[in-house]
Amino acid sequence: MSTVNAWAQLEPKGKLQPYSYELSSVTAEEVEIVIDNCGLCHTDLSVLNGDFGLPFPVVAGHEITGRIVALGEVAKTKGLSVGQTVGLGWNKESCGHCDACLAGDAHLCVNLKATVLGYHGGFANRIKAHWLWVIPVPEGLHAADAGPLFCAGITVFYPLLEYGIQATDKVGVIGVGGLGHLAVQFAHAWGAEVTAFSSTPAKFEEAKKLGADHVVSSRNSEEWSSLKGHFDLIIVTVGVTLEWDKIIAMLSPRGRLHFVGIPYEAIPVTVLSLLIPQAVVSASPAGSRSAFDKMLRFAARHNIRAMVEHFPMSRINDAIEHLESGKANYRVVLDVDF
Amino acid sequence: MSTVNAWAQLEPKGKLQPYSYELSSVTAEEVEIVIDNCGLCHTDLSVLNGDFGLPFPVVAGHEITGRIVALGEVAKTKGLSVGQTVGLGWNKESCGHCDACLAGDAHLCVNLKATVLGYHGGFANRIKAHWLWVIPVPEGLHAADAGPLFCAGITVFYPLLEYGIQATDKVGVIGVGGLGHLAVQFAHAWGAEVTAFSSTPAKFEEAKKLGADHVVSSRNSEEWSSLKGHFDLIIVTVGVTLEWDKIIAMLSPRGRLHFVGIPYEAIPVTVLSLLIPQAVVSASPAGSRSAFDKMLRFAARHNIRAMVEHFPMSRINDAIEHLESGKANYRVVLDVDF
Repeated sequence: MSTVNAWAQLEPKGKLQPYSYELSSVTAEEVEIVIDNCGLCHTDLSVLNGDFGLPFPVVAGHEITGRIVALGEVAKTKGLSVGQTVGLGWNKESCGHCDACLAGDAHLCVNLKATVLGYHGGFANRIKAHWLWVIPVPEGLHAADAGPLFCAGITVFYPLLEYGIQATDKVGVIGVGGLGHLAVQFAHAWGAEVTAFSSTPAKFEEAKKLGADHVVSSRNSEEWSSLKGHFDLIIVTVGVTLEWDKIIAMLSPRGRLHFVGIPYEAIPVTVLSLLIPQAVVSASPAGSRSAFDKMLRFAARHNIRAMVEHFPMSRINDAIEHLESGKANYRVVLDVDF
Repeated sequence: MSTVNAWAQLEPKGKLQPYSYELSSVTAEEVEIVIDNCGLCHTDLSVLNGDFGLPFPVVAGHEITGRIVALGEVAKTKGLSVGQTVGLGWNKESCGHCDACLAGDAHLCVNLKATVLGYHGGFANRIKAHWLWVIPVPEGLHAADAGPLFCAGITVFYPLLEYGIQATDKVGVIGVGGLGHLAVQFAHAWGAEVTAFSSTPAKFEEAKKLGADHVVSSRNSEEWSSLKGHFDLIIVTVGVTLEWDKIIAMLSPRGRLHFVGIPYEAIPVTVLSLLIPQAVVSASPAGSRSAFDKMLRFAARHNIRAMVEHFPMSRINDAIEHLESGKANYRVVLDVDF
């Protein structure tokens, strides 16, 4: 049993407040982590805003890095050790025995537990999770900046791996923010031809520095005239409504429009626009555990890093305001300072 | 040069009329076919109705079987011979040198010519086509009934092949008509667990005879309550509006909702409903030439046949009325009798 210090949303509105609770000792498959850093994701803002309908108090945060301090009887047989630097993302526990788990797709487990949905998350100094989702940070990655890889990073890396994207393919990335700036880096390191779509002209040069071969407006579809039938994969990292029909028209034969951002409005898919090029609309949540390890090693080998701004966790309310105001330089990471 | 006798829509409304035109001699890559039979597809009705905006007169028909009567210089080197029984479907010519053609995906050719779009089709006694799309009917298939395999058949067979459906998978088929009754047979012979969805209670028993393990209503979503998360693949063969959100909810993790029918209204796809099970919405047109040959051999080996009603082509207007009135027993085939 240990006491956790955290920052919680205690009621539907208002700023986060200090909040404490007890953490029971690890059970057989659990790992306890002392948290050093936690990224701040837009989904955390939704969780805190009550969009998920969770009971208060809510402790958000799911881009965690830290060190193992305790291992259950089973967990200690899984290659983990006390003191090890690890990360924890959106998922904290899967059942191990459903069809998806047995197939290596634990991220699609029917009994999946998410780090911040119904549980207290990473805006805190301690947390427990199932050993499968406590993932060692490999050498070559700076742990304090690595938190965003455990959510934003895996989310945009996974489609490249899962859908067999090749270095000869043309990849579009819509949105150059927390997810998009990692997607551009991953797709570039993958050897693909990368086109970034941004609504912010100031980001055009930055996207090129991150590896984009081309940058065009995500809002002005006139800039897309030469891109008809162009893309093998377009990754949508934003949650806004765009000209979807014209975006689908940019897919090549067998092309894929893949959502990792979640627009609130349904996407109106005209079947004929998919049928003629035999195209696909799809979406995916984070990624499998196997994909996580590949992503981390790939990021280390290619020096892919989340661009982050650090705030002490005691300034979490300032950090949230910074992110909400659109001023964040890609990703905010909170450094635990209880 | 030969004279073609055909049945044409001469003006926007009215019945088909006899119509004649000249067919130039075969060029190097062309094959001339004497038509024996031609299936009547719902898309033909759309073409005749002017939905494609084609100039009149229109000669529809794209489920052709017949015999080769002439081969161009190149075509005669491609394993074809005069007198051979062959079929011709939606596509009549592809360029051979675009990215898709070079990849074996000639059905996605950027210069594709469709048998009845801008050309005179199969409601006639002769036609020419590029050798690639003149496909030998293998032994074991009854040529006079095989026409529907060249459109309806390939359209529903292709997704099984293309998306790696396995005998352990669960396949849903929405609509038990011209396409659906073949989809049920193919998926059953594939070894999959097949659930047919029909709006017609009278078809429930027939669907089971065709190989469906289960049959449920396509309209009453209350019958779907036990099918949540069930299907690896759902093939939509109809063009009507259904409860798409509830249909997507029947997809298993990594499941696919695949359209071969073309609903006029856009499908409203809620991204979150795809994201959580990592599901896919897709569509495909007919299939590759390689898939055609596999489909025909598979149909012959498994004794899969289109259920057809024959009309002499001179009664084409009666046949169209029969199909439009919903009385057709799956598929109508016209027998050339000029």
